[in-house]
Amino acid sequence: MTTRAVAEAARRASRVLATLENAARNRALEAMAAAIEPASARLLQANAEDLRAAGESLSPATLARLRLSEAKLKEMAEQVRSVAALPDPLGRVLDAIEMDEGLHLTRVSVPLGVVGVIFEARPDAVTQIAALAVKSGNAAILKAGREVEGTAGVLVEVLRSALRGCGLPEDAVSLLRGRERAQELLGMHDLVDLMIPRGSKALVEYVQANTRIPVLGHAEGVCHIYVDKSVDEAMALRVIEDAKTDYPAACNAVETVLVHRAIAAEFLPRLAEHLRARGVVLHGDEAVRGLLRGIEVTAVTDWHTEYGEPAVSLGVVASLEDAIEHIHAHGSAHTESILSSDEAAAERFLREVDASSVMHNASTRFADGFRYGFGAEVGISTSKLHARGPVGLEGLTTYKYLLRGTGQGAGEYRVSSETGKAARTFTHRRAR
Amino acid sequence: MTTRAVAEAARRASRVLATLENAARNRALEAMAAAIEPASARLLQANAEDLRAAGESLSPATLARLRLSEAKLKEMAEQVRSVAALPDPLGRVLDAIEMDEGLHLTRVSVPLGVVGVIFEARPDAVTQIAALAVKSGNAAILKAGREVEGTAGVLVEVLRSALRGCGLPEDAVSLLRGRERAQELLGMHDLVDLMIPRGSKALVEYVQANTRIPVLGHAEGVCHIYVDKSVDEAMALRVIEDAKTDYPAACNAVETVLVHRAIAAEFLPRLAEHLRARGVVLHGDEAVRGLLRGIEVTAVTDWHTEYGEPAVSLGVVASLEDAIEHIHAHGSAHTESILSSDEAAAERFLREVDASSVMHNASTRFADGFRYGFGAEVGISTSKLHARGPVGLEGLTTYKYLLRGTGQGAGEYRVSSETGKAARTFTHRRAR
Repeated sequence: MTTRAVAEAARRASRVLATLENAARNRALEAMAAAIEPASARLLQANAEDLRAAGESLSPATLARLRLSEAKLKEMAEQVRSVAALPDPLGRVLDAIEMDEGLHLTRVSVPLGVVGVIFEARPDAVTQIAALAVKSGNAAILKAGREVEGTAGVLVEVLRSALRGCGLPEDAVSLLRGRERAQELLGMHDLVDLMIPRGSKALVEYVQANTRIPVLGHAEGVCHIYVDKSVDEAMALRVIEDAKTDYPAACNAVETVLVHRAIAAEFLPRLAEHLRARGVVLHGDEAVRGLLRGIEVTAVTDWHTEYGEPAVSLGVVASLEDAIEHIHAHGSAHTESILSSDEAAAERFLREVDASSVMHNASTRFADGFRYGFGAEVGISTSKLHARGPVGLEGLTTYKYLLRGTGQGAGEYRVSSETGKAARTFTHRRAR
Repeated sequence: MTTRAVAEAARRASRVLATLENAARNRALEAMAAAIEPASARLLQANAEDLRAAGESLSPATLARLRLSEAKLKEMAEQVRSVAALPDPLGRVLDAIEMDEGLHLTRVSVPLGVVGVIFEARPDAVTQIAALAVKSGNAAILKAGREVEGTAGVLVEVLRSALRGCGLPEDAVSLLRGRERAQELLGMHDLVDLMIPRGSKALVEYVQANTRIPVLGHAEGVCHIYVDKSVDEAMALRVIEDAKTDYPAACNAVETVLVHRAIAAEFLPRLAEHLRARGVVLHGDEAVRGLLRGIEVTAVTDWHTEYGEPAVSLGVVASLEDAIEHIHAHGSAHTESILSSDEAAAERFLREVDASSVMHNASTRFADGFRYGFGAEVGISTSKLHARGPVGLEGLTTYKYLLRGTGQGAGEYRVSSETGKAARTFTHRRAR
């Protein structure tokens, strides 16, 4: 099958999925979950072959993500069931306007249609993405990383057979193999509604630069914490520690801490000691290095650096405005936090900083779909359109307007140039 | 100034606009409106020069759109004031979740930032777009059609001086001249958040194909009306007449009428006579031409045709499903309507048809921001992401998440592998 044929089949399947009630979509998810464990022998065998083929070319961390086990398969099935338990993202009435008696407009949530997902070495991404897509009435076209292709192939077969078993089109979930197929998919903006790249910064940037299909994702997270001049310093140490050390590889980990100069001489040495005791490597501007003499602080070479490890850039700023300017100049509009006891300063920061999440007295690590209470996370988006910040199932939906009339024509509402009157006038009453 | 310098200045201006309260934005709009009439001599002179330069190269319709008058200037000023009167699109609380005691998440509407608008021969587009941008806290970079550049230049000068007079950055509204500048702008996805092409299908398609910046617009509107087998025929004639003849050049005018075969023999001749009496040229498939012998009906060569004039494609379908399939195969997902007395059939059509507006017993011509009650229309979008269908001021906004905490770290909410407990748990209570 050509890539175009796969995408066309996905489009046809999406038409069917879009018409299903929540209960029918949940039955499909239950069947998908139930199909995973009985296939464990085949899945583990395919996975063992993937691991063997990858051999020593992969890092221990990547191999750990790639490896399946009975326990992991059970967890994947549970994850599919947990998606079924989420509220229905479709058919929600987002707005309702009575345009006139007998002329009612509603705006309702509907699926996007076909979602393309390119991911790297995680087999559990297959089940998670397939589940989120089916729950939201979308068809998903997956492209797995080369090192996980064998495992992903068997997993997708298992899920397709579960869909067939429910009388649903198996093309709701399909897998493309090989880099050329991915490139072809990126060219199909007539058939694919959204691309979700999941993986390295290089992957996300490649997808963003090579498609006209809208992309949901973020290439990087250069997150900041600004420590204001009036602040509970013990709280600031705790929050910065959490933001930097809770999971340094995460996109919502802090990379740069900016300190107001009025407290820098007193606070920075405490912060440096606190972070160094937790294994964090320090980088600093000239002012910081002046204040931290005797402590190992290397110069910051580029403020737009995502360390992804226990390392942090420290800077001194003259004011709240300077902090905001620094963040706009060097950040990635992902997540920014102010630590301050001054409510007015905090509200100004929340208002003026342009980022998908802006926080006061909280760790940047909270920027996450599960922590925000969305029940699922499709991804985190640093683009401003469609979905911004942590994105739940809503990110896989769009809306349409439904107009229910009783035979009206638009001409009846036009003011006549002769009489100065219209036969009918709009009421435009919001009905919710 | 280079195009990049213009865009960077717009970005800086947008940071200021984003922090203004609604009252301050409205004062700026009032100043902009008040500045138009005193400048009428300069404006009319620049316009006369544009008209002279255009000479006989433009159609009478284009010349009429291009020409300014005292009355037209007054109307433009009024339009700016009417935008000021709209509800504030910014700072709306779109969602609110209590994550825990003392940890509150809200989602609030904020401006996009910088909007690029490319339009053709309408001088009133300058004031309208500038007004919508300022109202929504965005900076606008305009690129006018060559034939209106002189008029647009003076208009933008007038608006910029009004902004300066309010102590606001004049770079909130700027004008680029020349085709090369437009091409350069399309390459600046790091500085421009949204492109809005306003004009011909060719212009919209050119913009869509040549930028990574998200585009709000629609290249075409191939809208359908499906006449079901159970229908009030007099109503159907009225609605189809309105949808085709009210304003045939509009994107929401109907292009194709599909008739259920059970009523085709009886209804089609009535419809043909009704439309021909109103000057509509008929095209039809074989079945239609068979039923309308003796009436002039040319063969439909391409169902994906936007006539933009009093002409219509007529087709016979065997069922509701066939009508939906035809619409998905040949439509542009703009606006589709079913005329039917059968509520179940209508609800099925509303549910299954994938288009930005789907209607029952109403004219496709209702798909319009003003008719929908949005108070303004930024454009009509046939893309599924960000904004779909008629788009009001909301289309110039995005949102950000604000998290107000009291010193929490994300690690406190993680279940310990030793104790099986977390220090704190999320409450995730929706607060609205």
